[in-house]
Amino acid sequence: MRLVVVGGVAAGLSAASRARRIDPSLEIVVLEKGERISYGACGLPYLIEGQAKSIEQLTVYKPEFFERERDIRIRTRAEVTAIHHGRREVVLADGDRVKYDRLVWAAGARPRKPPEYKDNPRAFVLHTDRDAERLQAFLNEKRPQTAMVIGGGYIGLEMAGVLRARGLRVTLCQDTTDLLNREDAFLTGALLQHLHRCGIEVRMNTRAPSEPGTDLVLCAAGLQPNTAIPAEAGIEIGRTGAIRTNERTETNLSGVFAAGDCAETAHIVSGRPVWVPLGTTANKMGRVAGANAAGRRERFPGIAGTSIVRIGGLGVALTGFSELQARREGFSPAVARIHGPDKPKYFFGHGVQVELVADRSSRRLVGGCIVGEEGVLGRINVIATALAGRLSVEDFGNVDLGYAPPYATAMDPLLVAAQQLLRLLD
Amino acid sequence: MRLVVVGGVAAGLSAASRARRIDPSLEIVVLEKGERISYGACGLPYLIEGQAKSIEQLTVYKPEFFERERDIRIRTRAEVTAIHHGRREVVLADGDRVKYDRLVWAAGARPRKPPEYKDNPRAFVLHTDRDAERLQAFLNEKRPQTAMVIGGGYIGLEMAGVLRARGLRVTLCQDTTDLLNREDAFLTGALLQHLHRCGIEVRMNTRAPSEPGTDLVLCAAGLQPNTAIPAEAGIEIGRTGAIRTNERTETNLSGVFAAGDCAETAHIVSGRPVWVPLGTTANKMGRVAGANAAGRRERFPGIAGTSIVRIGGLGVALTGFSELQARREGFSPAVARIHGPDKPKYFFGHGVQVELVADRSSRRLVGGCIVGEEGVLGRINVIATALAGRLSVEDFGNVDLGYAPPYATAMDPLLVAAQQLLRLLD
Repeated sequence: MRLVVVGGVAAGLSAASRARRIDPSLEIVVLEKGERISYGACGLPYLIEGQAKSIEQLTVYKPEFFERERDIRIRTRAEVTAIHHGRREVVLADGDRVKYDRLVWAAGARPRKPPEYKDNPRAFVLHTDRDAERLQAFLNEKRPQTAMVIGGGYIGLEMAGVLRARGLRVTLCQDTTDLLNREDAFLTGALLQHLHRCGIEVRMNTRAPSEPGTDLVLCAAGLQPNTAIPAEAGIEIGRTGAIRTNERTETNLSGVFAAGDCAETAHIVSGRPVWVPLGTTANKMGRVAGANAAGRRERFPGIAGTSIVRIGGLGVALTGFSELQARREGFSPAVARIHGPDKPKYFFGHGVQVELVADRSSRRLVGGCIVGEEGVLGRINVIATALAGRLSVEDFGNVDLGYAPPYATAMDPLLVAAQQLLRLLD
Repeated sequence: MRLVVVGGVAAGLSAASRARRIDPSLEIVVLEKGERISYGACGLPYLIEGQAKSIEQLTVYKPEFFERERDIRIRTRAEVTAIHHGRREVVLADGDRVKYDRLVWAAGARPRKPPEYKDNPRAFVLHTDRDAERLQAFLNEKRPQTAMVIGGGYIGLEMAGVLRARGLRVTLCQDTTDLLNREDAFLTGALLQHLHRCGIEVRMNTRAPSEPGTDLVLCAAGLQPNTAIPAEAGIEIGRTGAIRTNERTETNLSGVFAAGDCAETAHIVSGRPVWVPLGTTANKMGRVAGANAAGRRERFPGIAGTSIVRIGGLGVALTGFSELQARREGFSPAVARIHGPDKPKYFFGHGVQVELVADRSSRRLVGGCIVGEEGVLGRINVIATALAGRLSVEDFGNVDLGYAPPYATAMDPLLVAAQQLLRLLD
């Protein structure tokens, strides 16, 4: 029995490792089209920033680890060009064919690079280790003074901050009225204020010019899932544009699973399919795909779309739905927004902003966001956990959060926001 | 219609404020036996430490605020000596009588001071603002060199750290085998190691000597709820020794509610009555008592016993049940303990220790603890929220926690611990 995994980063390696743990007798082959496996692409902006010193620091495991410790065969530079499910085999770019009994497609996503920048030697994307090396070399050799960052998602924001910190004059260009892909005026407003303080010029609701006139152009205009080859093999693509999977992460082809940035999954609040390519989801979804490919029956409950970004010392995090998104999903939202201290003054507490969104009819919490200098991750994670537990606003307002003066206020801003929300639901 | 609230700190003022918001026509009187209201007693160790400079910094509101802004009458130095429920009145120490229609008893708890230290001028407790003033004066004037701290609960631990930081030679004496009132060898072990590093001598399982021979003795041997007066009035006391309340925080006497450090409540995991006197519970339970006293029907879901303490830079937090406690409560516990980085190395991640406890038969998470230098509060709060949501270990392991390299690792130690726990449940 052979399991073939296509993709050697987060989802693929999680799937392979989990399958091995469940079935020691399974033959497992991972096919990775690049040269490296298991590196944390989320760390690439911090490599450019200089916080991480080398791509090796972003690499979790080397192929030898998987071969030796987990008896998983790793083939790098092995690009899959076709799936022949009838014959249970994949075809590689070099013509080689690899048979499978079970297949996990974890081929990720790739950045959208607007065609007008295709041949522009000053235009970069930041998606792979090679992209980072190229951008780093350009920055060090050409010493650009000005940069345009196209896209106000998390990579765009992180990179705007990183380039600004490296001394460039930075303009961020976003073609919608929202940042961080969240229709949320509160969040976008807080970010715009902060970007202004950081000295980053922002053009909202503006299409990027085809000839920006800056020394450097960074395209962070979103990703697209790698679905062409599975689609050709008859694997169903969902409305989100990513591979459709059931709650076991299986595609419409029996024995073929998909996980990570190429696959859609359920939103934990609405139950509807969503596509939010993030490394954390890839790890977890990959584990479930690997378990099911090894014969277990496991369920991936879906995601809340939690993300966090740091820019110029400020943490901005979100989970679940904003008010507008909640309305579009058929909820009847109520929203509380507060600003409060995260610690007592005598422990130098900072202000933290909290937005909580609830559904009036079910009285359930459906989303939230946090903006602040400290304690942002902890608080967004509490909201994400409340979404997983389908907590009502009442119950959320009574969660027994910890308190001691060096860490928090007696009524955490999360609970204060919940109380405000409760009054709106009365 | 008059609401009388006995106790002018966390629970009492939360109750009064909430009742006012619900019913603008209610007459509300708060009776406080001390001179100050609304101060954060949890901050007292940090006043001794010098982090907080004055008792005023611990005070949230002055009486005038409640009188003026909330139309709540505050009587300080008003000690209640009896409740005559038949006549719906309380009797004060000065002989005055105050009529009520509804009563909220929020008279708190007081420290146990072993009788052998009663007349020892070098022996102190730290419970009220006055206690802090006396201890501070003694430290500044007598310059003690050695201290014995009696009790390894959170006040004992915080004060051992504070006195050590002030340069005293400190011995901590605990009469059981556990610290932080949790039968948890993992937690106690981590604390003992750290106390040793801080240069604090610890005597476990040792009764405090009646004549310690140190320059200073700090008694932090636990609290006892102020229940004598309600008990005399026929208010039922629960098995925990605190006032018995139903889920609406009402006592067995109709129209008489109890909240905060004098009252027991339900444990959110077991549903059984527990008594864990903490300011956060007092705030929340007080709110519910105030709402019900003002005619609403609200439910307090109970507590998980979450607490966090900082000592010498280390954060130690717990929630729900330890393995031993879970077994005693009739669960069949499985435990995972891991040690992992809380952030990537290139962001100077620290190690964090995670203990998670689950019930084998229901597969539900029932408790956990966290020890580390950073991110301790956020992680314990995630576990506390999972307990409120009654999450299974599977679902907990798939919670969509946020990730970005400046804040976390792609697989948070919480999720790694959950995966380990899952393997034990297989």
